[in-house]
Amino acid sequence: MNTTTVSSNARPTLPEQSTAEPTAPFLRACRGLATTYTPVWLMRQAGRYMPEYRAIRAQHTMLDVIRTPELAAQVTLQPIDIFGFDAAIIFSDILPPLISMGLDLEFVKGEGPCIHNPIARAYDIDRLATPPAEESMAPTLQAIALVANELTPRGVPLIGFAGAPFTLASYAIEGGGSKTFAKTKALMYREPAAWKRLMNKLVTVQADYLVKQAKAGAAALQIFDSWAGQALGQQDYLRYVQPYNQALFAAVKRGTDVPVINFSTGTSSYLPDVVACGGDVIGVDWHMPLDWCWQQIGHATPIQGNLDPITLMAPWRELQYRIDDVLNRASGKPGHIFNLGHGILPETPTDNVKRLVDYIHTRQNVQEGHL
Amino acid sequence: MNTTTVSSNARPTLPEQSTAEPTAPFLRACRGLATTYTPVWLMRQAGRYMPEYRAIRAQHTMLDVIRTPELAAQVTLQPIDIFGFDAAIIFSDILPPLISMGLDLEFVKGEGPCIHNPIARAYDIDRLATPPAEESMAPTLQAIALVANELTPRGVPLIGFAGAPFTLASYAIEGGGSKTFAKTKALMYREPAAWKRLMNKLVTVQADYLVKQAKAGAAALQIFDSWAGQALGQQDYLRYVQPYNQALFAAVKRGTDVPVINFSTGTSSYLPDVVACGGDVIGVDWHMPLDWCWQQIGHATPIQGNLDPITLMAPWRELQYRIDDVLNRASGKPGHIFNLGHGILPETPTDNVKRLVDYIHTRQNVQEGHL
Repeated sequence: MNTTTVSSNARPTLPEQSTAEPTAPFLRACRGLATTYTPVWLMRQAGRYMPEYRAIRAQHTMLDVIRTPELAAQVTLQPIDIFGFDAAIIFSDILPPLISMGLDLEFVKGEGPCIHNPIARAYDIDRLATPPAEESMAPTLQAIALVANELTPRGVPLIGFAGAPFTLASYAIEGGGSKTFAKTKALMYREPAAWKRLMNKLVTVQADYLVKQAKAGAAALQIFDSWAGQALGQQDYLRYVQPYNQALFAAVKRGTDVPVINFSTGTSSYLPDVVACGGDVIGVDWHMPLDWCWQQIGHATPIQGNLDPITLMAPWRELQYRIDDVLNRASGKPGHIFNLGHGILPETPTDNVKRLVDYIHTRQNVQEGHL
Repeated sequence: MNTTTVSSNARPTLPEQSTAEPTAPFLRACRGLATTYTPVWLMRQAGRYMPEYRAIRAQHTMLDVIRTPELAAQVTLQPIDIFGFDAAIIFSDILPPLISMGLDLEFVKGEGPCIHNPIARAYDIDRLATPPAEESMAPTLQAIALVANELTPRGVPLIGFAGAPFTLASYAIEGGGSKTFAKTKALMYREPAAWKRLMNKLVTVQADYLVKQAKAGAAALQIFDSWAGQALGQQDYLRYVQPYNQALFAAVKRGTDVPVINFSTGTSSYLPDVVACGGDVIGVDWHMPLDWCWQQIGHATPIQGNLDPITLMAPWRELQYRIDDVLNRASGKPGHIFNLGHGILPETPTDNVKRLVDYIHTRQNVQEGHL
């Protein structure tokens, strides 16, 4: 069978719940254990820069691919087979859980996500449902089972993921992307009680969804708080975000023992507060030097990151220099997962992606000792 | 005479070149000297949130106001007379110097700045002129003389300003605003020699323009590097930005002894590298806690900032809490100029601006000692 085609007869595998040390370099790095090379995967590695992905999207909408387990599984496996990444990440988006809560989500071509009935007042928040993931996100849970069944024998871990409450709330309130997050912050400041109810509903939905992904076969989880740091300073983060992120990470930890990656952007001036939310690994954006991050948060926490995605458009000599810089800043320490500091850009040449993975794998960047 | 109307017969005053200690609280704070209250001004304080400004803009385009000294002076004085800020900033924009270099700039209503012939290759860079400011920016220099003549007797300092080379280069290359700065970074990586020539031309033009603003009557200068930190990580900043900012600050220092404010955003993970560019005061964005900034860079450098502009839309109780937080984080130390961490938003209620200024002035936040 072609490894990028997945049979819908595949049966779910059990999640990795063992207390024994994992063997996959990605999972070892998540635990701060020594590895023989630095594991690498890229955010949005299954996506528009790949002709194989575009061929599928030419025939199906984004939501169709997400909601058809066989298609989602096929797209998830493409970059593993073609580039040899050390982990797969289930093909989906952070926003679909909002649909069954009652929000009318559409991915508009060329514009990105659009919510046609955004939250405008407390009443809209109280109308939101909190359905269980088995019901609302069943296709993604099935896709996870299909991919895990395919990848477990090959020793490649699969990552499940979900959006953090603030990031989801900002889409739900703004109705799409935003530069200033003005509506979100206005609601936060003016209706703190309603804000609390909204965030708590999102914690409920996302915690259940994440735990179910692990139970379906995800060997690790990533929580994306893409916009909290862009939108908020430390003061707001501590009051309006951190308590809910802490609740989410704690709930996930109660439900599964797979490692959890805590990814955010724009949080460099209060990284320790982000770490305090929870998670086993901290995922950082490309603005901050990786060694500086470790200085800020201490060396006990593994780090994932953080090449600037745009450098993949540079000539190889420049790109290699930048890869070396990231690896050198992490040098000698276990607990580094190589990744970009944000999602890969659609214009990225696939040759550079192939060369990046091969270079990192052959560079023999031994991570010695134990964090 | 109505203080917001300026006669074109006003004669330029000499710049403040004295080595004696200044008396204006804003200038004292720029030097790290004790003040009896924290001086305050707001970036874009002359702007769209003011009905008096909108009344003038209803009859004149943005470029018309900038290029008519009497109008620019009138608009500059409006917020001083109405709100009582501790400093005025000349009404202009960072982009007009690009026009006489050869770039076709237009402010498109509702869209912001647009450059119709953006830089696409090295040839376009070599065609750019570097005309002297007396010729290309004469109206702004005349407006500065008019305002200084009006404000000097009232003891209110006037700030001149210019864009830093990277920020201007990004507009010139992208043709307007950008989220990813992809074209700018592509040119930087692929044609480093051309990048160097572009940045050096911008340093030449901006250094001359800033020094001439001081000679025309500006008592302080601010250099806006609004986008370098948004676009670049530390590695790129050190290679592609810092040498040119250093050259710019050094050239300004040779030409005038008025204090210079070094403003940037998104640079929290490499603030010491920003300070190393030069300037007497560091202006910071609203993401980072002010006391944390001082921890990063040491207490010898005065700081300007850094209320989140969106909090001006919050109810007064919340706004007051946030103003207190900024003041408390700077508490007891001289060398703090209260400002926003980015430009004031057009939707800001003027009542909140008035209340903010009065509150800061009456709070008697004594800055004791000497930095």
